[in-house]
Amino acid sequence: MKIGIIGSGVVAQTLGSKLVEQEHDVVLGTRDPKKLDEKKMFASTLREWQEQHKNRAKVATFADAAGHGEILINATSGQVSIDALKLAAADKVGPKILIDVSNELDHSKGMPPAVLASQEHCMAEKIQATFPNLKVVKTLNTIGAPVMVNPKAVGGGDHTVFVSGNDPDAKAQVTKLLRSFGWSDVLDLGDIGSARGPEMYLAMWIRLWGATKTGMLNVKVVR
Amino acid sequence: MKIGIIGSGVVAQTLGSKLVEQEHDVVLGTRDPKKLDEKKMFASTLREWQEQHKNRAKVATFADAAGHGEILINATSGQVSIDALKLAAADKVGPKILIDVSNELDHSKGMPPAVLASQEHCMAEKIQATFPNLKVVKTLNTIGAPVMVNPKAVGGGDHTVFVSGNDPDAKAQVTKLLRSFGWSDVLDLGDIGSARGPEMYLAMWIRLWGATKTGMLNVKVVR
Repeated sequence: MKIGIIGSGVVAQTLGSKLVEQEHDVVLGTRDPKKLDEKKMFASTLREWQEQHKNRAKVATFADAAGHGEILINATSGQVSIDALKLAAADKVGPKILIDVSNELDHSKGMPPAVLASQEHCMAEKIQATFPNLKVVKTLNTIGAPVMVNPKAVGGGDHTVFVSGNDPDAKAQVTKLLRSFGWSDVLDLGDIGSARGPEMYLAMWIRLWGATKTGMLNVKVVR
Repeated sequence: MKIGIIGSGVVAQTLGSKLVEQEHDVVLGTRDPKKLDEKKMFASTLREWQEQHKNRAKVATFADAAGHGEILINATSGQVSIDALKLAAADKVGPKILIDVSNELDHSKGMPPAVLASQEHCMAEKIQATFPNLKVVKTLNTIGAPVMVNPKAVGGGDHTVFVSGNDPDAKAQVTKLLRSFGWSDVLDLGDIGSARGPEMYLAMWIRLWGATKTGMLNVKVVR
C-alpha cells in the first residue's frame, strides 16, 4: 500500500522503517527535504535513514508525502501538526485516512514536559475539524516509538492500543495495519472526541516512564 | 487504626465499609449529619449504611471525621473538596496523612463528564498547597469504587494502582493499606505533582468505561 508519512523524527522514521520492511511503498515527508544531514533527536539523519532502505523509500516534501499515500500518518510534534498538514495541502488530497499519532508537549519548562491535551483541547479533534476531508484515526500516541512497531518487545505483547475516529471503515483499516505490527488488543474508544482519553493519558505515560526508568512499557486494559 | 473519611457518597461508603470490615475505627464525615435519609447516587442512605455497620462506625460532621482519623481520606467530589476540607478544619489537625481519591468532573454538559484535570490544574497538588500541614497521597482515583476495595474482582487482581505524594513514609503507610485491600502492584509515580498523571488519566478511564460498558476494569502497567 502507498503510505505517506508527514514528519521525519524518531516516530516517523520508526513507523516508516516498519512499513518498508512490510513492503509498503513509503514516502517520508519533511519540511525541507534538502536537509538530509540534519541531526534528529533519538533518530538517524534522513540520509542515513534513506540509505538503510536503499531505493525502497523516498524522502520528499510534506506535500509529496500527502499526495503519495493512500493512507497518511501524522507523525509530527503536536505543536506543529496543523501547520505541517497545511504545508502538506492535506485539505486537497480528498477523503484519505490520516493516522494521527501526535502528542502536543511543551518542553520549554524542562522535564517532565507539559502535556497540553485537556478537556478543552484535543489534537485529533482539531485536525479533524480543520481537515474535514480526512478520516482521522487517533492511535499509537500512548506508546513509545520502538513499542509501536514491536509490541511483543514488552510483556510478550499482552497489552492494549487504542483507536478513536468517526469513520468505522477507517478504524477497521487502521486496526488491520496495527494487527500487522503485532497488536492483538486493539480497543475502539469511540468517535474522534474520545481521543481526549489517549491524549490526556500521556500525562500518565510520562510519569510511568519516570517511575520505571524505561519507555519500554505499556498498559493492558484488564476487564 | 482511626480513620476519618471526608465525604459520604458511593466512594466514601465503599471505602468505609471495607475499613470497618478490617476492624478499623471509622468516622464518615458528611456536610449535614442530620440528613441521614437523603438519597445518594449509586449508594445507600447514610442511615442504611450506619445500620449495616451497627455500632462499628459513626456518621458525623466533616470536622468530626478530620479530628477523629489518624489517617484521613478525601472522598468528596473534586469540585467541592477544598471547601469540604476547609469545613473539616483540616488545616488545624496537624501533620496527618490525607489520602486523596477525588476526581474533578463536570457533569453539567451531559455524558461523558468533562475531566477538569490538566497540566495547569491538579487537584492533589492544590489540596497539598492549601493544607501544607497534611501529607497528601493521591491514589485510587483511577479505579471504580467496587474495584478499589476488591482488586481481585477484575482479572484476578493482576493490575496496577498508583501513589503520588511528597512524603515517602506517608506513601509507605498508604501502600500498606492498599496491600491490605488486595493490591499487589502499587506503583509510586513520584511527588504530589505526579498526580497529574492519574488525574488526567481519568479522561481515558471514562472512555474505557464507555467502550467496554463496564466499570469493572483497570489497567496493568506492563513493563
